[in-house]
Amino acid sequence: MAEALRVGLAGLGTVGGGVMRLLAANGELVARRAGRAITVTAVSARDRHRDRGIDLSGAEWVDDAAALAQREDVDVVVELVGGADGPALVLARATLAAGRHLVTANKAMIAHHGLELARAAEGAKGGVGVALKFEAAVAGGVPVVKGLREGAAANEIVRVAGILNGTCNFILTKMEAEGRDFADVLAEAQRLGFAEADPSFDIDGVDAAHKLAILASLAFGTRPAFDQVAATGIRHVLAADIAEAAALGYRVRLVGIAEAGPPNGGGGLFQRVHPHLVPLTNPLAHVAGPLNAVVVEGNFVGQLLFQGRGAGDGPTASAVVADLIDIARGEFGPPFAMPAESLAEAPAADAGERRGRAYLRFTVADKVGVLAEIAAAMRDAGVSIESLIQRGPSAVPGSDGHVLVAIVTHEGPERCVAAALERLRGSPSLAGQPLWMHLL
Amino acid sequence: MAEALRVGLAGLGTVGGGVMRLLAANGELVARRAGRAITVTAVSARDRHRDRGIDLSGAEWVDDAAALAQREDVDVVVELVGGADGPALVLARATLAAGRHLVTANKAMIAHHGLELARAAEGAKGGVGVALKFEAAVAGGVPVVKGLREGAAANEIVRVAGILNGTCNFILTKMEAEGRDFADVLAEAQRLGFAEADPSFDIDGVDAAHKLAILASLAFGTRPAFDQVAATGIRHVLAADIAEAAALGYRVRLVGIAEAGPPNGGGGLFQRVHPHLVPLTNPLAHVAGPLNAVVVEGNFVGQLLFQGRGAGDGPTASAVVADLIDIARGEFGPPFAMPAESLAEAPAADAGERRGRAYLRFTVADKVGVLAEIAAAMRDAGVSIESLIQRGPSAVPGSDGHVLVAIVTHEGPERCVAAALERLRGSPSLAGQPLWMHLL
Repeated sequence: MAEALRVGLAGLGTVGGGVMRLLAANGELVARRAGRAITVTAVSARDRHRDRGIDLSGAEWVDDAAALAQREDVDVVVELVGGADGPALVLARATLAAGRHLVTANKAMIAHHGLELARAAEGAKGGVGVALKFEAAVAGGVPVVKGLREGAAANEIVRVAGILNGTCNFILTKMEAEGRDFADVLAEAQRLGFAEADPSFDIDGVDAAHKLAILASLAFGTRPAFDQVAATGIRHVLAADIAEAAALGYRVRLVGIAEAGPPNGGGGLFQRVHPHLVPLTNPLAHVAGPLNAVVVEGNFVGQLLFQGRGAGDGPTASAVVADLIDIARGEFGPPFAMPAESLAEAPAADAGERRGRAYLRFTVADKVGVLAEIAAAMRDAGVSIESLIQRGPSAVPGSDGHVLVAIVTHEGPERCVAAALERLRGSPSLAGQPLWMHLL
Repeated sequence: MAEALRVGLAGLGTVGGGVMRLLAANGELVARRAGRAITVTAVSARDRHRDRGIDLSGAEWVDDAAALAQREDVDVVVELVGGADGPALVLARATLAAGRHLVTANKAMIAHHGLELARAAEGAKGGVGVALKFEAAVAGGVPVVKGLREGAAANEIVRVAGILNGTCNFILTKMEAEGRDFADVLAEAQRLGFAEADPSFDIDGVDAAHKLAILASLAFGTRPAFDQVAATGIRHVLAADIAEAAALGYRVRLVGIAEAGPPNGGGGLFQRVHPHLVPLTNPLAHVAGPLNAVVVEGNFVGQLLFQGRGAGDGPTASAVVADLIDIARGEFGPPFAMPAESLAEAPAADAGERRGRAYLRFTVADKVGVLAEIAAAMRDAGVSIESLIQRGPSAVPGSDGHVLVAIVTHEGPERCVAAALERLRGSPSLAGQPLWMHLL
């Protein structure tokens, strides 16, 4: 058997601990599959003295994570520090510059700096290149980076759509199952450890947007461009919205979707994270609880579904070590499936030309003329209404006698819906922002 | 860009035509992803003069497929001839012996001769090794070979279970949706081209058993052993069985399952293809029509689901070309995830010690004492009955006044169920063989 692959591990939190536990439990099997042992020779974390319940005796402790990049006994650095910039980025740059492989679970860093890091990896060692791998950055244990980069590589990708944030999916399915409202379920998720104390990265769609930017790059051969992902979260979804959706045969899911923009909108790449109404015929409708799932649609393969646990120490460690096995086998190439230099810059597509059906929900004063006002705004903007329902104050949490009006439109360009909402903006009849969800 | 990867293609049927069409449509994109062009330089098929509607002008015609293995202008042979032995096997052996890479969609050949071919591939070129890849052999376009070999490689696999035959799944879901019986739906499937004129390979579970043997080898690091897969098909499933299952909250699916045998049964590897009652909470219950799906259960990642189209020219070509892209990238290693020499021989597990719940359905004469006879056999064999239902003659197609008795057992060892059925064997009360399905 070849010499061991020597790992320097930065970060000993949930995922780092999981990697240590996985290698302890499955080390022999991993070595058989990888063709060589995978050994952690050095570790770094913030607090040396904290008891993590894992055996670190075989690895040397390094106070400054960035020093891992320079160690002679490290072939590959595993970065589990987190954060788009700061120490994680410093370590990543230093690792690749030193001609060492890099494995990371850091979605924010790859979404923001993926292009720079891919260039550095491909140019390392005088152009020989080193690995930059990030399977764990998207959908946790689900091998969807590999699925796109390799499994579906023969296809022109038509669309990639996924449930990419387990916290949001946990909250939405619990709201659905128990008819409870967002704030209530969020508080419970926080108590159970399914949501962070500061949940905004998750529930406002930022985390899913990081992951979508990575998937879109792999799918479309474009530079990762987080700032072109339009992200909305689930804060404003009411239990009543979920009930209306169910009555129509849909489930509400936070879906990240990327596809080529409509030709009449100038092309470009369309990337969005938004709550959607998902029909029961779509496999994403059946993804419940904290699971993640991604549907990849290719021009020859049709729809592929990848589903599994999107977070947690075990699944994430599984993905990190899968990357290490690929590196040990020598099976790695350009991080984004093709050379970084050939990744196209894709301008954001004009969403206004995108055609689809919309769910619009208004919270309104219960008085004469409000429905007429809404209907007139739709008509004047060219939005065709398929169904409209009004519900009494009980559907609106904390309502001051406000009622709820939910509309589903016929298919049409999104700019018309936007124009209708613009017409209604500032109307004294409306209490709060309308909610606009797309039908998948 | 590096020199083109030169392909010799044997077999121009549905899949071979699909590969040609895919490379024509997506060739430029494939080259960007692969880092080099993939070019078919030579083709071989039975009938040179048949119009296949594909452009073969760039490739040289070779009458004898085996000659592809020796051509100087071929780096990799794609074998799409089919059949476990015969010309396919001759070509595969010759290709590897000549130090050329081999890609195949041939599940029968890999299930029967995978070990020999893997040894030949690893030993080729004086031990440098060549690729032997077979993504298209299992679940068509779904990259589940890669998912096991690489994506889940860090895990000890607890279980792999899948819907591996689209024909059977099409028939079962149609029986379910329309309440029709097997023979009737099979005839329609044949008319629609979803089932072969001789459907026995599909409906008797042989095709699924080939695929399961391959998955089991990848999952458990064992030699592929088709002859140790216990396979039963769906011929004897009645519409009434599907209706009883539905009433209990289950769907009937032909499931291939592999897992470690129970320690008290001497260990070994358990491999079975059998109609199962799948609870609605299991993702396999929601796999409808001709789709394929595989659930991989790892000790760190938990359950992973891979789902998509399991047959057809587009999906299968997608998998074949994905293998070619891996080869063009130089990203390949031992075909069964670890060196062939280290694959363990796994004796078949003693299924009798396996614990589970069973669905048993008897077609019986409608006379006094039959129920007592069945119940006594169960009692005497130590089988505990959870529910029992008797239905009149309308549930039995072509019945001569026979009625149907369906039993669901409590959990217990399978040997007890087998003993109960043995006790009833030859009883004049029974019309035809009882049907035994396992609850997943």
